[in-house]
Amino acid sequence: MKGWSRKSLLGLEEMNPEEIIFLLDKAKEFKSVVSQKGSSLESLSGKRIINLFMEPSTRTRIAFEVAAKTLSADIISIAESSSSLTKGETLRDTALNIQALGADAIVIRHSSPGSALFLSKTIDVPIINAGDGAHEHPSQALLDIYTLRDNLGTLEGKNITILGDILFSRVARSNLWGLSKLGANVTFAGPSTLVPKDFEQLGAKVTHNLENALDGADAVMLLRIQHERQSTSHFPSLSEYTKIFGLSSDHEKILDSKALILHPGPINRGVEIDSTLADCSRSLILEQVSNGVAVRMAILYLCCMS
Amino acid sequence: MKGWSRKSLLGLEEMNPEEIIFLLDKAKEFKSVVSQKGSSLESLSGKRIINLFMEPSTRTRIAFEVAAKTLSADIISIAESSSSLTKGETLRDTALNIQALGADAIVIRHSSPGSALFLSKTIDVPIINAGDGAHEHPSQALLDIYTLRDNLGTLEGKNITILGDILFSRVARSNLWGLSKLGANVTFAGPSTLVPKDFEQLGAKVTHNLENALDGADAVMLLRIQHERQSTSHFPSLSEYTKIFGLSSDHEKILDSKALILHPGPINRGVEIDSTLADCSRSLILEQVSNGVAVRMAILYLCCMS
Amino acid sequence: MKGWSRKSLLGLEEMNPEEIIFLLDKAKEFKSVVSQKGSSLESLSGKRIINLFMEPSTRTRIAFEVAAKTLSADIISIAESSSSLTKGETLRDTALNIQALGADAIVIRHSSPGSALFLSKTIDVPIINAGDGAHEHPSQALLDIYTLRDNLGTLEGKNITILGDILFSRVARSNLWGLSKLGANVTFAGPSTLVPKDFEQLGAKVTHNLENALDGADAVMLLRIQHERQSTSHFPSLSEYTKIFGLSSDHEKILDSKALILHPGPINRGVEIDSTLADCSRSLILEQVSNGVAVRMAILYLCCMS
Repeated sequence: MKGWSRKSLLGLEEMNPEEIIFLLDKAKEFKSVVSQKGSSLESLSGKRIINLFMEPSTRTRIAFEVAAKTLSADIISIAESSSSLTKGETLRDTALNIQALGADAIVIRHSSPGSALFLSKTIDVPIINAGDGAHEHPSQALLDIYTLRDNLGTLEGKNITILGDILFSRVARSNLWGLSKLGANVTFAGPSTLVPKDFEQLGAKVTHNLENALDGADAVMLLRIQHERQSTSHFPSLSEYTKIFGLSSDHEKILDSKALILHPGPINRGVEIDSTLADCSRSLILEQVSNGVAVRMAILYLCCMS
Repeated sequence: MKGWSRKSLLGLEEMNPEEIIFLLDKAKEFKSVVSQKGSSLESLSGKRIINLFMEPSTRTRIAFEVAAKTLSADIISIAESSSSLTKGETLRDTALNIQALGADAIVIRHSSPGSALFLSKTIDVPIINAGDGAHEHPSQALLDIYTLRDNLGTLEGKNITILGDILFSRVARSNLWGLSKLGANVTFAGPSTLVPKDFEQLGAKVTHNLENALDGADAVMLLRIQHERQSTSHFPSLSEYTKIFGLSSDHEKILDSKALILHPGPINRGVEIDSTLADCSRSLILEQVSNGVAVRMAILYLCCMS
Repeated sequence: MKGWSRKSLLGLEEMNPEEIIFLLDKAKEFKSVVSQKGSSLESLSGKRIINLFMEPSTRTRIAFEVAAKTLSADIISIAESSSSLTKGETLRDTALNIQALGADAIVIRHSSPGSALFLSKTIDVPIINAGDGAHEHPSQALLDIYTLRDNLGTLEGKNITILGDILFSRVARSNLWGLSKLGANVTFAGPSTLVPKDFEQLGAKVTHNLENALDGADAVMLLRIQHERQSTSHFPSLSEYTKIFGLSSDHEKILDSKALILHPGPINRGVEIDSTLADCSRSLILEQVSNGVAVRMAILYLCCMS
């Protein structure tokens, strides 16, 4: 397809700005068609997509299901721990089996960084990375970027702060690559245990001071404090975290009057963000979810049709 | 739609008799079309329904899936414990997320009484209550009432006995509202620990004597003894319950020759009912299941199209 | 249908050679249509199939789902332990309920040998056995036989060795019936604890010597060592098993140059088979998976349309 030559979508680090824009424009096109005609596109009719979720997830899996069905593709979700699915089988063998069943694309979530890349090199069908360990989560970052562009017009020169559990976050990494490529300045913010100074080497500014992080930001992207990923405690207590890094209406005086708030969900009201801010007009949290369907439609479409 | 103005279906307590009849007539219409043409209606084509089951259930969930697919709707089931789904997220936020995914209706089962009502007030898409704690289970009661009307002609002046675990039963409550509105006399029967005398305030007659409960009944609706809902023991033992309140062929001499038997399933043969009675011609147990598909088609149709 | 008179598919023991061939030819026809036109056949449009998996399984369940969807049937999978599904309900009652929901066929996996036969006698809808204990697994054997015929031309006079855990294997039993009916000579091979001499009474040759098992074989069908089915240890250790009965490239000198290798998956690389052999050109393992979709399409089609 003109403007798109990838078979698989593995991450934003490898994409160039033109590809990102191309995909986002395709998503915009789908979003406008769906809003006019309801969910009855035939673009992927007869295509068979397998959702292979080897790490627990409901949201991303359902969003891909909705996207696939809206394009009339058949989608079958396999949502199991890798141990019960594979019974000692290698990941490559599992994927080869799915390919042999006639899959036209595999959407995979897996706890190992690089698992999607690995599969894309060993099997023929398109591989869509729905999260590989703490590495990348491109469909989430693309929907975040879609939402930011839609609201800010352009990302060129914009200041985007990503606040919270950066250390374990594939969302933060994917957003950093994508936002930087489109010209934004990215700041990682949070306690030093979750936002190591080293991360500046990735190209982000790093701060451990919330006021600095909010001041001048065009948008603040909050990340969920993911207890389940943390092997050791990275802050004294949740309430301690909230007190120092939680976003509350007190911060409105620091925030630019037009500064936007994003969050990939599920939100912990009263932890990363208080309810007033989560529900205020600057919050794009639900817009992100809606845009996520359109973005995943574009991903499935481009990977299946290329 | 003429004759129907509700967006959500929350329970039978709030419905008036005309609405109940309207819905049952719609179900009858669907049942007759399906029996002629097979399962290929297009009435809800392009509609997207989310089955959100935050309490374990297979039967009701599958019945809604079958109903939705028969009308050509897309239905996605989320069948998970609330804790693993929400990760600390509020129920309202979960529902707002589902709405943002583009759902045209949410079918919800939840352990909290009032959860469906709560959602219907806070989000825009139709909410269909598939069981909220011990409060209401309207789709079950509507299929029971459909089955009774279909067999008795009218419910006006009929005597319906509901026998078993009334205390914990949303099915009993929903049936009481519905049956009473259509003119039936409802008796709640069972041991006093499961059928408190107070329940007469709800409008039912209460008896702790099985013979009284069966004598003169046009239909006996058995409820399952639900061990899983009971925090403390409400009767000495299952066999004790069966001996005193189990329905056996011995009771045929008390039952009217035309008296009908219903049960929402799954039946415990030899506990609430013996096998001879469960399989005899007066048993409508499987007819209830079939009618349940038609009734849920009507519910989905009316809520999605209103 | 001319050439096919069965409503249910229970096992290969009861089928005659003509029926097996008829089904395999139908599968071939479906395979060729799908490869030309993609997955958009309408043959079972409007049919409703229930996948009732009361024993854990992902592969077979997904393969039936893909097959059903490729024929445009609606398929709903119920994948639960029998205890959580039935809550004390009998298997017959569960199946009667599914029938009452309007199912046109039930695909069942159950831990009890004879469960599919039992259901086929007590309910009206077609029953497709997807594995009943250690008894039969006809769809797997049919796809194995399809793959062998496709590669060998005919099974008449061919020597097929089935190697591994025969004792607990429904795949071995179903293959024995099917292969014998089509004229092949079947050898069961493995340690005497897993391949009792008694099994010769079923019509197979039995050997506990790997070289004898491989010598002269036109195909070797490996079985997975199924730890989960074994109540007591049937061999000292996995590595011991591998040393004596694992297939490695060393065996290529014994194998006929055209001898084929099959495995129902998931394969344990380095246990039953080493990686070189699993991936070599004589391995038909992934072909089996592909053929499995076509074979299950034929099964669903013949049972639903008969």
